[in-house]
Parts: sequence; structure tokens; C-alpha cells
Amino acid sequence: MDQNTAFSETQHQSLTLPQGLTLDCGRHLAGLTLAYRTYGTLNTAKNNAILVCHALTGDQYVAEPNPETGKPGWWARVVGPGLAVDTNKYFVICSNVLGGCMGSTGPRSPHPDRPGELWGTDFPPVTISDMVRAQKLLVEHLGISQLFAVIGGSMGGMQTLSWATLFPDFVFAAVPVAAASYHSAQNIAFHEIGRQAIATDPDFHAGRYWAHGVSPARGLAVARMTAHITYMSEAALTRKFGRKLQSGTQLSALGTDKFEVESYLQYQGSSFVRRFDANAYLTITRAMDLFDLAADHEGGLANAFRGTKTRFLLVSFSSDWLFPTAQSRAIARALNHVAANVSFVEVQSDKGHDAFLLDEPDFHRSLAGFLSGCAEHAGLTWA
Amino acid sequence: MDQNTAFSETQHQSLTLPQGLTLDCGRHLAGLTLAYRTYGTLNTAKNNAILVCHALTGDQYVAEPNPETGKPGWWARVVGPGLAVDTNKYFVICSNVLGGCMGSTGPRSPHPDRPGELWGTDFPPVTISDMVRAQKLLVEHLGISQLFAVIGGSMGGMQTLSWATLFPDFVFAAVPVAAASYHSAQNIAFHEIGRQAIATDPDFHAGRYWAHGVSPARGLAVARMTAHITYMSEAALTRKFGRKLQSGTQLSALGTDKFEVESYLQYQGSSFVRRFDANAYLTITRAMDLFDLAADHEGGLANAFRGTKTRFLLVSFSSDWLFPTAQSRAIARALNHVAANVSFVEVQSDKGHDAFLLDEPDFHRSLAGFLSGCAEHAGLTWA
Repeated sequence: MDQNTAFSETQHQSLTLPQGLTLDCGRHLAGLTLAYRTYGTLNTAKNNAILVCHALTGDQYVAEPNPETGKPGWWARVVGPGLAVDTNKYFVICSNVLGGCMGSTGPRSPHPDRPGELWGTDFPPVTISDMVRAQKLLVEHLGISQLFAVIGGSMGGMQTLSWATLFPDFVFAAVPVAAASYHSAQNIAFHEIGRQAIATDPDFHAGRYWAHGVSPARGLAVARMTAHITYMSEAALTRKFGRKLQSGTQLSALGTDKFEVESYLQYQGSSFVRRFDANAYLTITRAMDLFDLAADHEGGLANAFRGTKTRFLLVSFSSDWLFPTAQSRAIARALNHVAANVSFVEVQSDKGHDAFLLDEPDFHRSLAGFLSGCAEHAGLTWA
Repeated sequence: MDQNTAFSETQHQSLTLPQGLTLDCGRHLAGLTLAYRTYGTLNTAKNNAILVCHALTGDQYVAEPNPETGKPGWWARVVGPGLAVDTNKYFVICSNVLGGCMGSTGPRSPHPDRPGELWGTDFPPVTISDMVRAQKLLVEHLGISQLFAVIGGSMGGMQTLSWATLFPDFVFAAVPVAAASYHSAQNIAFHEIGRQAIATDPDFHAGRYWAHGVSPARGLAVARMTAHITYMSEAALTRKFGRKLQSGTQLSALGTDKFEVESYLQYQGSSFVRRFDANAYLTITRAMDLFDLAADHEGGLANAFRGTKTRFLLVSFSSDWLFPTAQSRAIARALNHVAANVSFVEVQSDKGHDAFLLDEPDFHRSLAGFLSGCAEHAGLTWA
């Protein structure tokens, strides 16, 4: 069974690593496929590679149109020729995470021991560290022994932090954006809403929906809608929608009319389900919930970074209430505690968590400047 | 069909007003039943009555155990002998809102024209003003021509504001707590999540679940869980649960273990569905979404209060992100603009929106003091 047919006919560029990967849960994935894309050119010294890590619902199509949706790459504002992550200078790698549904091994992949079946909910639980270890196999396969930088927002920022703590010598510079060193109780709670909504959908079939030729589209849409609210600030929702009704009249709203914010959320939910797998959503949200750098280092976040030579740029957005500035500041404090090289920028924005994906020139300038400075320190030169 | 049998055998004290009520949507309810409770004694001048308005999932059992759940009254900390709303002094009335499911006319009531059927989703849309007009019929039936005070939190605060603008001469004092003059885009969005979750439940049957002998318990539980997160502050969730696992170990979490915050939410959801009707939830959340005092008064909130003689105490809680302090401050500003008599207290609390129901001595002292002052102005005396 082609692992993509349940979804679409798109063939994603991928690499299969026959050695597989042993996961944090102790189980071994016998084979490991990672779908990935690269942009720009790896120099002969192989020291200009930047790994970009995607967020919960992101994918490897960071700087080019997504073949499933036809939409521009999710960070087309940031990664490309002449942009902050300049593909004229850097060799950019982005891979679909382990556990994802855009070509990498995950719940939508064929089950290794049951011909004709998918992994589904039997796919082992994965962690952010597992995702990072899988990425490292890919990067090493590409002949790279040190990444010039690892960059990512939200869950991509978690991966960036994980890279910097698991493989500090492999990472010259790290840029966790709109991230945190752990998933908070509130974050876990919002994820749990989404998971419960998926489980409530009659088409979920205890995760075996693929065997029934259906998908829990309504439950997954509710999960996406919930998450979407947390990505936006109250101000952004008000500016964008306020209390506007679709029809423009107040009275008909008493009947069947909708507020614009409702139809927007419903659209967000319904378009999402065409590109995302519910079991992958369950797997990846769980990986985020389990993320807790301090707990992995005897309760001390500073311990996670002790002795690091990596240069850090931390970026937060003032109206992000999902991964608030205080979380980035706590990481900056831990890095300062071990005398690491760290810059911290809180970008003033009223766009909420989503700001990391949007038009935020201050963020893009800070990122470009930081990378230029790091390139100088790394002795990177271009003709 | 007894309107309570689908739910429990509890008979609620109620009053049926045969004249019915014409609703904002233009439809007329031929009969109107309001379930209510009173506490304390109405004095001979009939000028010591306080109407307490309940929130979305509240009911008339404000100061005594709820017969459905056996739990203490939802404001047993506030209403009772010697408390801020002192039932030794005041005659307190609390009624289940129109559209509710604790004995008042609502979606769970018998359909007037279809014997053996319930209203269900055919129940007309109601507004906060409709709820208030229904309450006024009850209050007048009790022989009261002016309320000493109207008090309520959250949706109860919306009703309080609506009382003060619809019937200003009927309300000597008004205390909207943790309230707002309109439902924001974010508030509407969170409600829409809940409604979609209910609609996704296979037991919803397009709102005719009562005819199938079932209820959309899982969807309603997801709705309740979502709302519950918005009632708590991030700090409160962190203090209460942090990242604690039920089993106490990190590794087993990779398998089937749960974070404590997840099982807490699941418990909140599952206990709620035993006492609440899904169609009532849809009706009442919609009423809240439609609330917009300024829009009802040519776009100017101050217009809503012009000429008012009512004395106001506005109360907000510093960590309430659902009805933030800025919303109460905007009401205070509008009242100041028309030279109304208004006090405004922001209570420092990290308990979020829920604080209005919890142990907040500063709030309770402010409320008691305000009522005493108003009683003096009203010439109320006690032996």
C-alpha cells in the first residue's frame, strides 16, 4: 500500500534509513523514512547548512508551494533568495517530522508486520527528541557533520532546543522562535480538547478509520478550530472579525446566521482535514505535551545547556499567549546562568502566536542580523 | 411528558405565567414557566429584594444544595445569613434562565403543539433581554415594583447590565461581576468550538437526541472542557496541575498515562453532562454571543445608560482573560460619561474568570460594603 494514497497521490521526496531508530519509549522502528526538501546549495566545506524545523501542522514545504494545497511555503516570507534565511547563501533542509503525515514514517505509514494495514494508533508514541534524532540521521546522510543553524517556531522551536541540548557540538547557532522549554498545563489542556473531539467523531473508529475508508473529519476540524483560537490574540480576532455577521444584519442572527469568526473557524477546520491525518495529530500533540527540558535534566533548565558553545537567538511575540514571552525569558535566563551566548528579542506584535508565520519585519531583520553575525564568527564567506 | 424525566425526577419550584412572552426574534411563547428559589423574607415595604442572575451553567440553587448534584449552592459563599448578600436582611430571588434546563421553559420543555415531543432545537432563539423580561414577570408576580439590587457574574453580569438598561427605574443598584457589554470574537469562537463538538457527537441526532433516548454526552463534555479552560487562568492551571502525571512517572506517559490536567478536564466534562441539556447549552451560548449593549443603543455604550439613577458596582478579576478588566473598565467609562453613580473594583486574583465563584474575600467585602451603602441611600432599615 502506498502510504500516500489514503490522502492524495502526491509523492514526496524522501529518504529511507534502513537502520531505523530506537525511540524514547524503548521500541525500535525497523525502517525509517523521512520526507524532506532542500533549498540552496551545500558548499564544499559543508558548513552552510541550516535545518528548519516545522510546527505541529507544518511540513517540509517551507519555501515552495505545498503540492497538497497549492499554497505558498509556510515560511516563504523567511526562507528564500535574499530573505532572512537566504538560500543564496545557505543550504536549507526541512523534513517532515517523525510521526507526521507528509511522507515521513508515522501513523499513516504501512504497518511493517501487517500487510495492507497502516500503523494507525499502534504507531509508537514519539517525543520531540525522537524527531530530532531522526533528523540527525538525515542530516548526517547528507554528509553534514555540523549544522550552521537550527531554526524553528512553536514545536519547531522545541525541536531547536532539543537539538541544542542533545547535540550541542552539532549546532553552531540555534533560533527557537515562539517556543518554550516545556508544554504548560494550559497547552496540554487545549491539546486534550482536540484529542477528545477527534475521539468523539463516529468516523474515528478507535483510530482504525483508514480501514473503514473514512476519516474523523468533523472531530479533527474541531481540534483544528480550538488550536486556531490559541494561535491568535484576542486583539487579532477582534480586528479581523469583531462581531461582524456574515449577512450584516443583527436580527437574522437569531435564526441561522453566523458570526464571521464562526465561518472563518469552520473554514479553517474543514480545509485542514483535507491535508492532515487524525492519528498523526494525536501523535504529534502528545509529543509536544511530553516536552519538558528541565525534567529531562534533573529539574534544572540551566543544566540542559551547561557548557554549550552554541549561539542562541530567542524570539518571542508580545501578544503570544500560547507560548508567552515569559517562557522565552526563562530560557534566556537559563542560558545566561551558564554564560552561554544568547540574544533575546521580544517582537511587539498583536498577532498572537501566529505572528511567527506572518509579516513581522522586526523578527525577520533580527533573524537576518543574527545569522550574519554568526556567519562571520563561523568564518563563512561567499564569493 | 414531564419535562424533567429525561434528566432526573427532581421537581423544581416554579411559576407558570399564562400570558407568555414575546421574544426579541418576534415569536411568542404562549406559556412561560420559570423555576426559581427565594431566600430570606420580603419586608412589608417590598423594597429589600435582590435578584441574583446565574451564569451559563448555573441555576436557581444559589444558596442551598443543588438537588440534582447534591453540591452546595453555586454562590453559597456570597448569599446567605451574615454573608455579603445577607439573607437576614435581603429577600433574594434567583430563577433558572429562560432557555435553561432546570425547570424553566427551554429546549427541554414539552413542545406546546406536538404532544409527547420536546421543544429541542425548535425552541426559538432567545436573547439576554428575553431572559430579563421573563425575570421581570416573575419579580412583578411576587409583588415587587422595584428591586433593591440585581447582581450577577459572567452571563449573570450581562443580565444585570440588561436589567439596568431595559428597566432602569426598576433597579436601585446593579452589580455586574466579571462581565462585559458584549461578547468578543474570541468568546464567540470558544462557544463555537463547543457547539461544533456537540454537533459532531453521533448521539446528537440533529438535536432530536431526546427522541432517541440518548444525549450527546461526549460532545457536550468536550464543550464543557473547552469552556472550563477559559474559566481558569494559566497560573491557576499551573498551580493546580502543572505537568503532574496521574501515575507520577514520566516514562509511562508515553503509553497510556495521563496528565492530571487531562483527567481533571475529563471529569469536569463527564460530570457536567449529567446535569445539563445539550440543546439548552446551544440556546444559552447563542444568547451570550448575541449580547452587545452598544449595538442595541446606536453603537454608543454610554447611550445605554443615559439618565440612569441606578448605582453601579463593577467588579473584575485581574487574571480573568475571558471577561478581562478592560471590558469592565469600558463600562465604567461609559457610566462616568453620563455621570452615573459607579464604583469599580479590580480584584487581584490569579484564579481567572472562575474567581467570581471562589473564595475571594476582597470581592465579598466590596460587595457587602456597596450593598450597605446603597441600603442607607435607599432608606432600608432593619430592626
